[in-house]
Amino acid sequence: MDALQATRHTLAHILALALQTTYPGKVKFGTGPATENGFYYDVHFDGIDFSADNLPAIEAAMTKIVQQDLEIKFFDLSIADAIKWAKEAGQTYKAELINDLKTEGEKTVHFYQIGDFVDLCKGPHLTRTSQVPLGSFALDKVGGAYWRADETRDQMTRVSGIAFADANLLQEYQTMLTEAEKRDHRKLGRELDLFTMSPLVGAGLPMFTPRGTILRDLLTDYSLSLRKKHGYQKIWTPHITKTDLFKVSGHWDKFGDELFLVQSQETSDQFAMKPMNCPHQIQIYASRPRTYRDLPIRYMESTTDYRDEKKGELGGLSRVRALTQDDSHVFLRESQIKDEVGTLVKVVHELYNQLGMSRLRARLSYRDDGGGYLGDPALWEKAQKFIKELAVENQLDYFEAEGEAAFYGPKIDFMAKDAIGREHQVATIQIDFFMAGRFGLEFTNEQGRKETPVMLHHATLGSIERFLSVFIEHTAGHFPFWCAPEQVRLITVNQDANDYAKEIAAVLEKTTLEQPIRHNDLRFTLDLAKDNLSKKIKRAAELKIPVLIIAGPRDAAAQQLTLRVNSEETTIPLAKLADFIREVN
Amino acid sequence: MDALQATRHTLAHILALALQTTYPGKVKFGTGPATENGFYYDVHFDGIDFSADNLPAIEAAMTKIVQQDLEIKFFDLSIADAIKWAKEAGQTYKAELINDLKTEGEKTVHFYQIGDFVDLCKGPHLTRTSQVPLGSFALDKVGGAYWRADETRDQMTRVSGIAFADANLLQEYQTMLTEAEKRDHRKLGRELDLFTMSPLVGAGLPMFTPRGTILRDLLTDYSLSLRKKHGYQKIWTPHITKTDLFKVSGHWDKFGDELFLVQSQETSDQFAMKPMNCPHQIQIYASRPRTYRDLPIRYMESTTDYRDEKKGELGGLSRVRALTQDDSHVFLRESQIKDEVGTLVKVVHELYNQLGMSRLRARLSYRDDGGGYLGDPALWEKAQKFIKELAVENQLDYFEAEGEAAFYGPKIDFMAKDAIGREHQVATIQIDFFMAGRFGLEFTNEQGRKETPVMLHHATLGSIERFLSVFIEHTAGHFPFWCAPEQVRLITVNQDANDYAKEIAAVLEKTTLEQPIRHNDLRFTLDLAKDNLSKKIKRAAELKIPVLIIAGPRDAAAQQLTLRVNSEETTIPLAKLADFIREVN
Repeated sequence: MDALQATRHTLAHILALALQTTYPGKVKFGTGPATENGFYYDVHFDGIDFSADNLPAIEAAMTKIVQQDLEIKFFDLSIADAIKWAKEAGQTYKAELINDLKTEGEKTVHFYQIGDFVDLCKGPHLTRTSQVPLGSFALDKVGGAYWRADETRDQMTRVSGIAFADANLLQEYQTMLTEAEKRDHRKLGRELDLFTMSPLVGAGLPMFTPRGTILRDLLTDYSLSLRKKHGYQKIWTPHITKTDLFKVSGHWDKFGDELFLVQSQETSDQFAMKPMNCPHQIQIYASRPRTYRDLPIRYMESTTDYRDEKKGELGGLSRVRALTQDDSHVFLRESQIKDEVGTLVKVVHELYNQLGMSRLRARLSYRDDGGGYLGDPALWEKAQKFIKELAVENQLDYFEAEGEAAFYGPKIDFMAKDAIGREHQVATIQIDFFMAGRFGLEFTNEQGRKETPVMLHHATLGSIERFLSVFIEHTAGHFPFWCAPEQVRLITVNQDANDYAKEIAAVLEKTTLEQPIRHNDLRFTLDLAKDNLSKKIKRAAELKIPVLIIAGPRDAAAQQLTLRVNSEETTIPLAKLADFIREVN
Repeated sequence: MDALQATRHTLAHILALALQTTYPGKVKFGTGPATENGFYYDVHFDGIDFSADNLPAIEAAMTKIVQQDLEIKFFDLSIADAIKWAKEAGQTYKAELINDLKTEGEKTVHFYQIGDFVDLCKGPHLTRTSQVPLGSFALDKVGGAYWRADETRDQMTRVSGIAFADANLLQEYQTMLTEAEKRDHRKLGRELDLFTMSPLVGAGLPMFTPRGTILRDLLTDYSLSLRKKHGYQKIWTPHITKTDLFKVSGHWDKFGDELFLVQSQETSDQFAMKPMNCPHQIQIYASRPRTYRDLPIRYMESTTDYRDEKKGELGGLSRVRALTQDDSHVFLRESQIKDEVGTLVKVVHELYNQLGMSRLRARLSYRDDGGGYLGDPALWEKAQKFIKELAVENQLDYFEAEGEAAFYGPKIDFMAKDAIGREHQVATIQIDFFMAGRFGLEFTNEQGRKETPVMLHHATLGSIERFLSVFIEHTAGHFPFWCAPEQVRLITVNQDANDYAKEIAAVLEKTTLEQPIRHNDLRFTLDLAKDNLSKKIKRAAELKIPVLIIAGPRDAAAQQLTLRVNSEETTIPLAKLADFIREVN
């Protein structure tokens, strides 16, 4: 445990002392651990109606304890003395925990003490309360929890706090939380009319409106266009398959009880919805004889997979049951892996740079000693060594993690930082020495003999739904000009400018962007309504349309127009409009 | 029954007479009707090994009967006499049929007689055998059938023939059949590497290779681009839904037992795969308040529907379980229907003209008196009247058909003729006064009151899989230049031309077609292999690549190249290449 986690753990005890001092004899303590961003304590209040209103007073009491610079003492008690202590203190939950330790054969119990608050605890802790930096923590939530997470047992109150290494970092985190709430993609999705859900269709099955569809199509097209330059070819596969396919691939054994099963009423065929695309894409490779001259064969596809997520896990676009992947599979020789992974690493960096998320970390995801991995451990070792060499050669900012591999091979998983500092798992590159063999895939080598190809699995965006949940919050709905659903709105000052508006529209109609995707025709609308100008501008601002063109009768006479970008206005000649538009970022 | 069907029916009897004369006492007759393109007779041979080898002799005997100009006589017998006749003639199947007539309460049985062949039959028939035009018929098949289509009963031999109004029409049909066999899309699909099937995935679930995916994407993009010009907006909906959605729409009652049901293993949700898209698209309309100013709201989508077809009905791409539709739904006021249908009729004609299938007929599909139709019959009558007015106004070549409507409204179904004269059902436009009401859809009218919109359902291509089965056979795999998967192949005469090939490739790289879809980048490959020229040309011809560019070292020096289109070669300067390509059709 690092220093920050020890501080957070100590803060849980300081919280307990503050509660005990404020409500003497009225609080029974459950457990109080450190968490990812802070700490909590689960307690049982006797006859006290504790709510978020009480947090400021408790937080003040905690600050006082820090300022008092109390010593944090450590001691051991025998099991018998520990039980005696719990009984005398009236701490029934603690008594239960000590009894469990006894059952497990423990002879002594470790205790920590701060002021009057004594707690059994393994530590580690700080040695004095003043080591907690002032202003580095805050209480933020009062919630419910069951004792020992068992809903048949006592309902406890969970008092939670956040804590960071210093006051600045705490404030940064709090700002991020406020900002994240403003950017919530579910809220923006509604306001910008991007997607919708329906109880008739079901949770986790979003439908995309015209604006949302433009966004998802452009991001997907962009992602696939980067691979197209490197010889990747689009293919198409259906969303269901006989379960036989997954029995051969190994997915049935591994994920069989997490699949959506499909029941044919007309035949006895056993179908399932595909939760991933490798086995389908493999069938296309297998559809004709291949030789070494054909390799690498590179497929890509934008297709929807279905995963039977529990309802509690579904939320907006972050976790859905219908996830559309920009999925690739490459069939190649071992000697071609290095170049191909190098290409994909470049593609990943190019895409995330373009989207303003250039701070990528790479997680090298290895197997652990658990079961469920396919194939020869020696091949795994080779593949994992390979992954690391590739990370070094491609100068990735990497870290290693055991137990994160796919069941068929190790992976490089990319983590992107968004505009408010949160890290999200995005792209993946996976090396697979096994799947091709399970399907009996082969190619003829230079000697006319059959060899089994290696496979790479790759997605640049991953699930477009999940990526959109990240991207909407990353941009706060201010999408880059090239992918904004509505890029330009042309607003007339009054009806006398309507003819001129059509003249301007004719210019926009012919304007096409060529970066970062080719042939991106301009998406614009005309607001010729009789409403006044400020109302029209407000309407456009609500939809976060990046460029407004305002034109009145005098502009018509002067063959000019006013451009409004980020609330700033400039007047330019109509003749310069197309050039201007092509320069917007 | 028209004259041609009477002739075909008579030919069934002439066939029977020819069999009876050729194999006296060895043939028992079942039934012998006219069919769509000819006739057949199901017979039972006693101890005769009848095969296709015997057909020429029987056909000759039939021709002789025609030339003999026999009278075709009609008479009635009482049931008792009829049974007596059947027994004496040893015709046990006929005896069974007569007994059935008796059970049904018939008193007399109608008979026809040609020469020595007597048959119970309702007619009508020709009056003399010479009325069958010489050379207008042919025997074409020997197959099996069960007596009364019951597999527990006797196996019969089905002898089939084809027959047309005259010898020329017969020959046309036979040429068409031969041509159709050559064009079989399953055969071409394999040869041109367009799609594949896998027993692991299942019947009716094709997967599209890179070449096939280009073709399906371009045709779909073209279809949607025609609607985009008229204000149609792309949306996206998932492939499954809770069955609740179909219960509201009425599809559950109508098609519930033909759906693929989807079983969630993690939740108790009841899902089904969507067999059509209207209810999903309706959810997007329903996601926010609408006013009369917003109408018509026009959605379009290319999405895959799933239908649980019986295995025996599946064949290549003609009938599949995964069908991708270019589907539209329009929400509008009654007063807007005429213009909108007019627009869609134009779109349909534009697309099929472009694809070389300009001979469109329109079937006005009305309800019949059967059950299963939603809503008020008066509204149906109005909608059907509307459909007919629209057909007249839009100068459609139409015919009317009762019982062909959708359960929610009447339709205009378009039938296109392919290059070998076969007619295929393709586009559809449907008027629906009911579905919007079932979902409680509304918009606010000029008076601030709520109104229910009308809906139009439309698909231009229909299912892209089914359309491809038609289009591959229509073009015989010689796709129009703009949508050919590989449009141009550049072949070098020898390795000394490889640098020049790159110079040519740089020109092709920059060439983009703008008709019939915008921004259609050229798809070309380079064949720089060391094989000799004729081998390279053969390889390209097998894939039916429309344009070959052949270049050698001397061409490099002269900055020219040879173009090979439809086996004809022309030499042009490199500087004219892009212009030439843009003119290819």
